[in-house]
Amino acid sequence: MDDRDFMSVALRHARLGAGRVNPNPMVGAVIVRDGEIIATGHHDHFGGWHAERAALEAAKQAGVDVRGATIYVTLEPCCHTGKQPPCSKALIDAGLARVVVGSPDPNPLVAGKGVRQLRDAGIDVVEGVLRDECDRLNEIFLHFITTRTPFVMLKYAMTLDGRIATSTGLSRWITGEDARRRVHEDRGRFASIMVGVGTVLADDPQLTCRIDGGHDPVRVVCDTHLRTPIDAAIVATARETPTIIATAVDDEQRTLPYREAGCEILRVDADGDGHVSVAGIVRALGERGLDSVMIEGGGTLAWSALQDHVVSKVSAYVVPKLFGGRNAPGPVGGEGVEAPDDAFRIIDRTVATVGSDIVNLETDPIAKYVDRLLALPSRDGDANREGSGGSRAITENFLIEHGF
Amino acid sequence: MDDRDFMSVALRHARLGAGRVNPNPMVGAVIVRDGEIIATGHHDHFGGWHAERAALEAAKQAGVDVRGATIYVTLEPCCHTGKQPPCSKALIDAGLARVVVGSPDPNPLVAGKGVRQLRDAGIDVVEGVLRDECDRLNEIFLHFITTRTPFVMLKYAMTLDGRIATSTGLSRWITGEDARRRVHEDRGRFASIMVGVGTVLADDPQLTCRIDGGHDPVRVVCDTHLRTPIDAAIVATARETPTIIATAVDDEQRTLPYREAGCEILRVDADGDGHVSVAGIVRALGERGLDSVMIEGGGTLAWSALQDHVVSKVSAYVVPKLFGGRNAPGPVGGEGVEAPDDAFRIIDRTVATVGSDIVNLETDPIAKYVDRLLALPSRDGDANREGSGGSRAITENFLIEHGF
Repeated sequence: MDDRDFMSVALRHARLGAGRVNPNPMVGAVIVRDGEIIATGHHDHFGGWHAERAALEAAKQAGVDVRGATIYVTLEPCCHTGKQPPCSKALIDAGLARVVVGSPDPNPLVAGKGVRQLRDAGIDVVEGVLRDECDRLNEIFLHFITTRTPFVMLKYAMTLDGRIATSTGLSRWITGEDARRRVHEDRGRFASIMVGVGTVLADDPQLTCRIDGGHDPVRVVCDTHLRTPIDAAIVATARETPTIIATAVDDEQRTLPYREAGCEILRVDADGDGHVSVAGIVRALGERGLDSVMIEGGGTLAWSALQDHVVSKVSAYVVPKLFGGRNAPGPVGGEGVEAPDDAFRIIDRTVATVGSDIVNLETDPIAKYVDRLLALPSRDGDANREGSGGSRAITENFLIEHGF
Repeated sequence: MDDRDFMSVALRHARLGAGRVNPNPMVGAVIVRDGEIIATGHHDHFGGWHAERAALEAAKQAGVDVRGATIYVTLEPCCHTGKQPPCSKALIDAGLARVVVGSPDPNPLVAGKGVRQLRDAGIDVVEGVLRDECDRLNEIFLHFITTRTPFVMLKYAMTLDGRIATSTGLSRWITGEDARRRVHEDRGRFASIMVGVGTVLADDPQLTCRIDGGHDPVRVVCDTHLRTPIDAAIVATARETPTIIATAVDDEQRTLPYREAGCEILRVDADGDGHVSVAGIVRALGERGLDSVMIEGGGTLAWSALQDHVVSKVSAYVVPKLFGGRNAPGPVGGEGVEAPDDAFRIIDRTVATVGSDIVNLETDPIAKYVDRLLALPSRDGDANREGSGGSRAITENFLIEHGF
């Protein structure tokens, strides 16, 4: 086991906080002495211990001495007093000899300070071990903390000829069990999930995370004219799982039944296309602390989201089937671009297979947005480095104190 | 270097015959003594030496003694007298000690006989080294020799949202240089290339192999109503590169200008959809010894080919761009299937990246066809083995003597 192996273990522990720590990052920590793991910890839920403290506490409970040991932590230890005393001080006080770090602190005003405090105390610090993986783990956190707008991922499954349904509109099922499980894992780590009212009318989906112990995302329906059936599954279950209906309808009488069923009505102005503004909805979700949105359908909503420049990532499942059909719908509808050069270009993508046969292409970020954003400077100056995961872009109003 | 490494070298030599040996297989051979390559050979062109003989001849020219050496050959040496004396005898006469084979002879009545002759002569024979790669190299040959119908590959490039053009019909360019180069390599190894007349009208393509020394495929236009412009590039260059116009029009006067320009007119009946029958055209191409067809566009032709059950493989380039557009065309048009369960399912696929960013998914075979075909038995009895390349299917009328 070398540094990368131990950092992999720390990453596995970090993932235990998926869907429970938002809008904090997932962080894992592993304490190692003489090549043996003697304690582990992770940031378990919002308001809970930081991973470093959890690992130190686990060692204490087990009666293990950590003096002179090495700690692996997926994110640079904090050095400021937020809700918790700084972790850098805790590591120094515990007498650790070596600290191995994955991602730097995403706040450029704080990045490197935690590491410097450790070094000043005589601790050997190694930075950037499995940094890409550590950054990618927290793509949502890194985006939200630096832009204060939710991280938006467009997710769809299509056939190898680019269809999300047959020409008769049937879509169940395109994917298999393995891909559906992975979608549910994504639902578990996203704070909210968004669909167009067309998807509600066609599929009457639950939009919950059907994994044991998984977190249900807040459900958001883009429903300009308030066409969601009052007996839709998401309305009927709105008291168990928060449900927001974003609509341009401004009529207390018409919205009353939905509110009585437990739904929240979000009034949003229609945009030029006559649809509720996706950018407006995303902004409103960010303002209430929801750090992420997964857009799950359909093509009209996907096109609106692209047009509004809010999509940070695409997660496309390509299924080894052909439907054909000149009228069978594709994943992105609307008007579409006119010239090939006007395409939304994807800067980086990863390819993975899911189960035995489905290909998942994930991408980030989308080039059309990049010029609107400032690059987050990294310490070695490659501010525009591509392909290292997360959407490395900030706006003016990034948060100084990320307070987790 | 072990057996697999030397077989890889033999595969590289085999590929030198791409587009020149059809309808024969590409075959490469490498002679090795004491871990050193002492001679190489390949089947260079139709009617030329077999790879084994070419390698033996190269050794002779170089004054190298091959007695006691090992030969690596990508396809089982032939044991019958066709246009050439059998290679098995030549290897025995040359005094080789060991023969390492990739693919077995695709003819089930001959498979294993060449190997048995070698063993009976006291030669050590190893079979099946890099068999999948060797089979895949000759997917065209293996299909044609066992079915006597051309190997048909549907090729398209689409955006990550499944569009082959924007909503205004523009498609140049979706792919980059790397993918276009690979398409030209494919054109070089296919005996013919087929497009619908819509593609001719929209793009006026050359459909040649623009790689130095590359072989130009025979160009075939599916043109039910004879709408190909007389000044189209493929008509203007029909005297340099064979061009076939497949049409339902049976009118000497109307076809005369095309014939005068050097095109061949192939009269084909229209099918139920009112289009020329793709299956009929493919059959006619096979009858004149063309072993392969690459279908390059557009969606209507792709759908007809799928409906006619002639497609053996799909080569899809997925480009990291999004066009959007509910009216932007996809790679397979037509009516399409009605229910997801009616999809053309793909049994096996490989995923590769082309250049920095394009994903190529290649597949074979397509499940809908499989039940119509008999499986080619392999020696270890797994007649329905998936994923080993080539379309392992035969009809009753396979060829006993493949005569290369």
